[in-house]
Order: sequence, then structure tokens, then C-alpha cells
Amino acid sequence: MKCYLGIDLGGTNVRVAKITEDGQVLAQVKGPSYGQEGPARVMANIKSLVREIPEWKECSGIGIGVPGPVDTKAGCMVLSTNLPGFAGYPFADEMSKEFGMPAFLDNDANVAALAEALVGAGKGLNYVFYTTISTGIGGCLVVDGKTVSGKHGFGGEVANIIIDRNREKVNYLNVGAIENEASGTGLKRKYEKASGEKVKHTGVVFDKAQEGDPFAKAAVEEFEKDLGQYFATIACVCDPDIFVLGGGMMKSADKFLPGVIEQYKSMSHTAVHDTPFVLAALEEPGIIGAAMLPKSHGC
Amino acid sequence: MKCYLGIDLGGTNVRVAKITEDGQVLAQVKGPSYGQEGPARVMANIKSLVREIPEWKECSGIGIGVPGPVDTKAGCMVLSTNLPGFAGYPFADEMSKEFGMPAFLDNDANVAALAEALVGAGKGLNYVFYTTISTGIGGCLVVDGKTVSGKHGFGGEVANIIIDRNREKVNYLNVGAIENEASGTGLKRKYEKASGEKVKHTGVVFDKAQEGDPFAKAAVEEFEKDLGQYFATIACVCDPDIFVLGGGMMKSADKFLPGVIEQYKSMSHTAVHDTPFVLAALEEPGIIGAAMLPKSHGC
Repeated sequence: MKCYLGIDLGGTNVRVAKITEDGQVLAQVKGPSYGQEGPARVMANIKSLVREIPEWKECSGIGIGVPGPVDTKAGCMVLSTNLPGFAGYPFADEMSKEFGMPAFLDNDANVAALAEALVGAGKGLNYVFYTTISTGIGGCLVVDGKTVSGKHGFGGEVANIIIDRNREKVNYLNVGAIENEASGTGLKRKYEKASGEKVKHTGVVFDKAQEGDPFAKAAVEEFEKDLGQYFATIACVCDPDIFVLGGGMMKSADKFLPGVIEQYKSMSHTAVHDTPFVLAALEEPGIIGAAMLPKSHGC
Repeated sequence: MKCYLGIDLGGTNVRVAKITEDGQVLAQVKGPSYGQEGPARVMANIKSLVREIPEWKECSGIGIGVPGPVDTKAGCMVLSTNLPGFAGYPFADEMSKEFGMPAFLDNDANVAALAEALVGAGKGLNYVFYTTISTGIGGCLVVDGKTVSGKHGFGGEVANIIIDRNREKVNYLNVGAIENEASGTGLKRKYEKASGEKVKHTGVVFDKAQEGDPFAKAAVEEFEKDLGQYFATIACVCDPDIFVLGGGMMKSADKFLPGVIEQYKSMSHTAVHDTPFVLAALEEPGIIGAAMLPKSHGC
């Protein structure tokens, strides 16, 4: 069975793994990424980690997931807030030359989507739409086993989709952007503002809503409606076979997902009401998805 | 050079053409579709038109564009408001058996998008997003030369995307659906309601706006903002290489497209500001796109 090298690079840590084409992790090493020290240090570290993987030469390709939008054709990052110096750096080319095999780069949410599409909850389906909801909101459409990363690597940068342009300005994102309105951070912020009460984490807002707190009920209701509208919008654009849901907020999925699906149905054609909403199946979609990049390119 | 049979079927008329793989029409016949008389009559008519095409047997496949969402895997329509009796009818299978070559079915807006992606304004690009704006609004994403028609054929049924859920209820579509807010019909309706004055067609609203009519100016401004938000949303989902624009409203493109692009930029990341907005290049994308369906499936 074919296997690939997957690299999950973050601003703080990096993992390198040898993974089979059906998503089994055969070997893994990890360590600090030295992400703030610039490309020379980061790349030398990654190369040395790859060489720690037993029989890495058996692999058919390298895939790398990075935090930020990627020019997938050029194999380099477009923006690199968490990895200074990497915007425009020829990441994939350098890895390919170093190890003598094809190398591909994509955004970390996109590779997570790819993992779910190829070996996770969306396995075997043509159109998989992955959404991750935690402190922020990200996503990616996968068509026939390839991420739709787009011209500038902004495909799936759904955070900035406007849900309601009559909301308040929060940050650099659009007024009414889904990330500000329906992420964990957004729900917590809106509850705290309405109630005048601080809460430790977002889960408390769901608990209070169930206990009948009117501010929490209103905040959760708007949250469900906003997310329902988001998914209805996605269905209009690409009508996926499945919505796969990841991210920290899914720990509370039982408290809001039924409401989100009800709202989704109220804003979409009956024909698309049977589209399943399914929790992500993989525990480590980031590293597995990175390894799936060369597979998705036919390696 | 390979050639294909394209069939553009509407509720009133039907066209059949023999078209080369680069989009040249070699022969064409047309006539009434008998769309209200049911599948038996419609199919017999189409079959007889195909046999009028000189050397139709040279073709490598058949593609059919129909008005309504299509289950592209099954090759049948999902809804068929304008072609009674065709929902679930095994259209592609029957054509394939009759003529001994592969046959494919898709929605008419989707095949127009395919034509623009393969031999029109988006030729050679990976990610093409086509939008048609006339009395209604339709669209389709084309990835690597294949339409993203989706699980239920609702991919690109963008009419129902909610732009602002605080608008008035107009019809069966969502409150604030883009088609009701920013189609030609929508702009005319909103101007007439605000001004209390009837106009002959949508073009008059643009003229009045340029003359300084405050109701027309407000209506056009909202129209541009709504469309800008629509394109910004699409960019977040799939970051296309190009936005291709078709439909009757494009006759007035010089009067609103600069404003739409300005609004698009105000609601999207600077990285995607260079995405071109280009008018559709083909005069007959419907029939050419139908013929491109077998090509897009590798025939």
C-alpha cells in the first residue's frame, strides 16, 4: 500500500508522519516548529524530523498543512501571520528537491477537509463541505477528492461571509461576518454584552439557555439561525453530499446542532433537506489530511 | 477533431447541434419542444431532430441542458416546472441507448457555465464561477472543467442565497433572497414601490439614477451593494479565478458593474480584489455548453 509524508506545521509545533493512503499513521515525530525564527530554522528542523521517520524514502509524496491561505499552484503561503517570513517562500519546491518526491502545500483547514473527504466522514462522496467552528470559523469544499483552494488560496475562508450586514462592527472582518456572529467567541461575546455578565466559556451559554436565561436563549437562537443561514448559503453554491463539522464547538453539538438543522431547512429548498450534517470522524485530520495532499494530486 | 451533440431543451423550443470540442457549431436544427405535452412527444421530437444532423454518428457523446435542477449521476431532472412529466424521467439513459453513445444531462445555467469555462471567457482556468442575472439569478461553479452540480442538482441554484434577512417577503424564495433583491425584476419592483411610479423595464431605473432621481439612486445603490455582497460570499466559498457574468442585465453592465465591484472589494480581503469580473464571451452558451457535457466527462 502506498504511503505519504504528512507535515502539520503550526506557529508553535510541528508534526511529521508517515501515513498510508487509507489514513493509517505508521510513524510520527513531533516537536517545536520554531515558527517565529524564520524559514531557514523552520525548514532545517522539518527536514531533520522527516529523516527521523523510518524508511521515509518509501513514501510517494509529501503534503504540508500550514496556518493561512496558500497559493497551491506555486506551493507557497500567501499570508503567514503565524509563520513570519513564509509569505511567498517556495515551501513545496524546497521539500520536493530535498527529498526527491512531489510535495504539495495547502491551508490547515483545507487539509482537514481533505482528510474527512478521503478517509473520514465524507469517504467515497463527490462533494464534501467541511466546516470547523471553534474560536473562529473555517471551511473547505472538496470536489472529487481535491480541495477547492481557489485562485488565491482563499477558497473556504468562510469566516468573512456576511450573514447580516446590520450587526455591529467587531474587528477587521466584515460587519455581520459569520465568524463574529456564530463562532464560539462570537456567541460568548454577544451573550456577555446582552446580559452584562461574564462567562468562563461558551458552553456556559448553552447551559444557561437550557435553564431558561432569556439573554442566553436569545443568543443561542440567533447563533442557530446564523449558522442555519450559513449552511443554506453553502447548499445554494455547491449542494454538497454531506456537511462535515469539526472544531471545538462540536463538543456541544447536541445542544445546538438540531436547532441549526431546523433553521437550515427553513431557509432551503426541500430537495436539499436530506443532506446529512455529520461530525468529523478523524481525531487528527490535520496531519492525515496533509499526507492526503499528494494522493489527491494523483501521486 | 472530436465533436459532440448538444441539445438545449426549453419549455417552448429545442435546439440540437453538432459542435466541435473547441466550441464551433458545425450544424444546428431547431423547432418547438412540445414541452407541455409530456416526455413521449418531447423525446420522439428530439430523436428525430438529432437524425436531421448530418453525420451525427461521428459524435462522441450527447449533452443535454434542461430548465431545472438535475440529478447528474442518474441523468434525470429533479424538478421540471417547465417540462411536465420529466422529474425522474431517465432522460440521459434513453438518449444513450437510442444513439449508442454516452449521454449526460445538466441544468441550463450549469451548461452555460461549462461553455464559458471550457471555450469562453474562462477558458484554461481551474475555477470559474458563472452568474447569470436577468429576470432571475442563476449560477454555477466549474472546477477543472466539470460543473459542481451537487448531490441534488442544486449546486449553483444561487437565487435563494439570503443577502439580508430583514427585507420583505416577496414570494416562495427566502426573505432577502438575492434573486428578489438584485435581479432585473427585483430592482424594478423595489424602485416602483419606493417611487410609486411604474417603469417599462429595468434599464429605465439606471437611467433615472444617472439623472439624479433619488428613489432610483437608492435602489441602484442597494442593488450594487447586494450583488457586491453576493460575489464576496462566493469568493469566500471558492475563490474563483474569474467571475463570468451573463444574462440580459449585462446589457446595462456599464451602469452598475463598476459599483458592484467597488462593493465587492469593500466586503472582501485585499488578496481577492484582483479577481476579474468578465462578461460572458459566447453568444449561445446554452447549446455549446450542452455539447461540452460529454467532453467534461472525458468522452
